[in-house]
Amino acid sequence: MRHFTTMEQLEKQDIYELLEEAKRCKKQNGFKESSEAFIANVFYEPSTRTKLSFEAAEKRLGYTPLNVDCDHSSIQKGESLYDTVRTLQALGAAAVVIRHPENNYYNQLQDISIPIINGGDGSGQHPSQSLLDMFTIYEEFGTFQGVRVAIIGDVLHSRVAGSNISALQKLGAEVIVAGPSEWTKRVDQSLNVMTVDEAVANADVVMMLRVQHERHVETLDMRNYHEAYGLTVERAETMKETSIIMHPGPFNRDVEIASELVECHKSRIFTQVENGVFCRMAIINAMVRANLVQELKGVM
Amino acid sequence: MRHFTTMEQLEKQDIYELLEEAKRCKKQNGFKESSEAFIANVFYEPSTRTKLSFEAAEKRLGYTPLNVDCDHSSIQKGESLYDTVRTLQALGAAAVVIRHPENNYYNQLQDISIPIINGGDGSGQHPSQSLLDMFTIYEEFGTFQGVRVAIIGDVLHSRVAGSNISALQKLGAEVIVAGPSEWTKRVDQSLNVMTVDEAVANADVVMMLRVQHERHVETLDMRNYHEAYGLTVERAETMKETSIIMHPGPFNRDVEIASELVECHKSRIFTQVENGVFCRMAIINAMVRANLVQELKGVM
Amino acid sequence: MRHFTTMEQLEKQDIYELLEEAKRCKKQNGFKESSEAFIANVFYEPSTRTKLSFEAAEKRLGYTPLNVDCDHSSIQKGESLYDTVRTLQALGAAAVVIRHPENNYYNQLQDISIPIINGGDGSGQHPSQSLLDMFTIYEEFGTFQGVRVAIIGDVLHSRVAGSNISALQKLGAEVIVAGPSEWTKRVDQSLNVMTVDEAVANADVVMMLRVQHERHVETLDMRNYHEAYGLTVERAETMKETSIIMHPGPFNRDVEIASELVECHKSRIFTQVENGVFCRMAIINAMVRANLVQELKGVM
Repeated sequence: MRHFTTMEQLEKQDIYELLEEAKRCKKQNGFKESSEAFIANVFYEPSTRTKLSFEAAEKRLGYTPLNVDCDHSSIQKGESLYDTVRTLQALGAAAVVIRHPENNYYNQLQDISIPIINGGDGSGQHPSQSLLDMFTIYEEFGTFQGVRVAIIGDVLHSRVAGSNISALQKLGAEVIVAGPSEWTKRVDQSLNVMTVDEAVANADVVMMLRVQHERHVETLDMRNYHEAYGLTVERAETMKETSIIMHPGPFNRDVEIASELVECHKSRIFTQVENGVFCRMAIINAMVRANLVQELKGVM
Repeated sequence: MRHFTTMEQLEKQDIYELLEEAKRCKKQNGFKESSEAFIANVFYEPSTRTKLSFEAAEKRLGYTPLNVDCDHSSIQKGESLYDTVRTLQALGAAAVVIRHPENNYYNQLQDISIPIINGGDGSGQHPSQSLLDMFTIYEEFGTFQGVRVAIIGDVLHSRVAGSNISALQKLGAEVIVAGPSEWTKRVDQSLNVMTVDEAVANADVVMMLRVQHERHVETLDMRNYHEAYGLTVERAETMKETSIIMHPGPFNRDVEIASELVECHKSRIFTQVENGVFCRMAIINAMVRANLVQELKGVM
Repeated sequence: MRHFTTMEQLEKQDIYELLEEAKRCKKQNGFKESSEAFIANVFYEPSTRTKLSFEAAEKRLGYTPLNVDCDHSSIQKGESLYDTVRTLQALGAAAVVIRHPENNYYNQLQDISIPIINGGDGSGQHPSQSLLDMFTIYEEFGTFQGVRVAIIGDVLHSRVAGSNISALQKLGAEVIVAGPSEWTKRVDQSLNVMTVDEAVANADVVMMLRVQHERHVETLDMRNYHEAYGLTVERAETMKETSIIMHPGPFNRDVEIASELVECHKSRIFTQVENGVFCRMAIINAMVRANLVQELKGVM
């Protein structure tokens, strides 16, 4: 594995190694002394939390971030993604984190010799978010075997949902989907579709997805969304005692989740944010180390 | 004191402690070794000098800044200020510096457990600027007792004026205000209002305020402002030998202050900028330390 | 030399000292421990690669960058360049790197006592780019004597061309220019003008300039540019065995240079980017050191 681009590319064993590395990072909870390398962050789409999380991970590992401001970059002068990344490598970057609106943008970067870390592409993949979701579940239950995860909302368009379904199935968890039928009926037919009421009451993990107002503003009646498909206080009361609430953020209070539930004792929403830093540390560590090994092999 | 939000919240003793801490920071004039924490900077309004000053203070103290770019943040996706700040805390921020256009925005952040440091709100408060003004006066005169400070210009709308009047009175200085009558006549009736000529000739500190073109472009005749209310070279010649000129910046040359006076021997304008870094170091130190003490108490 | 503003200001000896310093920086290839100073970067024009290159140089030298975001700065409030730079000095900057659209902007900064490092001005100068070009040639050939450099394209408007012609002549290289006649016929009459075919076949260094679409969109037929004036694969085959290809970037593939040639064995395009960091380290080192010496003299 040279680039970290999708959850699908990871073997079950790869995921477990990343989760164990993230656990070590969380346990140490420290800052490394400055090392001798840069990591470049190139975000073609606004995403404060993912960007800050990667920056925090890099700084904790002692890397120096090189942030490319995409409003003011050569990109305006028509430079291709490949040329931008190749330039960042020449400037000394040991790896590049990219978020890009185009699906599978990383396919045009196969010839780049430093690791590409996917910070999200189009509506396709968001593997580092997926890894932190896996970590949060693993931290809670100690296993994936028999854990029932309900993913509720816009399963069809969510980056997170796609990566998570793939990873959860690989790890042995049971996936349920629920939400408006125009979204759920078009997903993978092998998935277990339930009503929101059933999903909430039966799941060990209730994973709510963000309603993307910018996407659905015309097709959906937002006023009724909370009652019809959101995690209301009433629905949350039907959850099992040991089950938890997750949300990738940013969340819409009182749309997909009742405001009172965001920081309730069942919620792991801000724990997910915290875990995100440790998971991104694990990804960076694994990728940069793998690349060093590969370079050494090239030398010998 | 958990959050640093207004000068009014500070007791006289609190202010003196901050001033003494800033003095120590200025005397050391060093950079600490990197510590193990982030400080987040969230600026919803453009303010290069305040933002850079906080960043410089954080870096001198060994903190790692996490800068939220408000153009490209989740804010666009409708996230509330509380949720943004709560997320920054989960990412590892030990404190958050905020500048926000809304008066008293910090009231909605009372439940945040890390310190909020107010970098300016609406036209209400700008306490770190106020502290550096106090520091510059204290450094010059060694006391506030009997020091006569003339605040000249848009006393009514200036963030700085509001915080400073409150602090100066608490510390025992004498405050004079002067400027166009539509501004001075509507301020606190207990203040001593003079003509600009009288104020300049009588003050130990001549504190000029910025004319906010963006605010007053229609209501004020700018061509005559300098002659009528500005610190002209002629007026400056009537100043007492020991008195000094201050301005919070950015200044308009030849509007509120004659260009020749900006770096004259009486001017402390760039000394204020320099002192700003040390005062912000003092604020951060005090707030983060107080928070650690509080957390320890919570543990015990 | 207090400010680093043009190649013209540099004596031949100055340039060699900078080249030797850059060579040392490249050989060490390390990161210094954090020192005790800031360097401010003020970019009034978008230029990702120059900005990131300076940032990387500063960080490798242990300086802490203070980045001024020109969209959100006091500049909007009408502050002059002098006042902005004077403020950055007061905030603790040991030097300021500036890119500005106005020719010779640095003339208004003569009274600033910290070094100004020119990151490019108008269509006039781009001396740090020029130094990295000199370094790349020097690294390749070990000398400038008798090295024939063909500069091909918009010689008239290119920042890079202007600085390079001046420097190359000073160092003893032979300069050839080629390209559309409306550009080449108006340059310095002492320059050797050739056709593109002749220039490519005769040069030791084929230095292609970027076609500035934003400038020439109406006056030039882009569809034929590559065939008429670009470095095509066919032309490249006529190059001497030891000769190299250079380009300041960002490049337009298949306009001024054939896409296949960008990373061919003759190309030094990404080596230039890499060398840029070391040359900027050399410039910063030289300027800050010179300033310290000057300050010490002032004290004694």
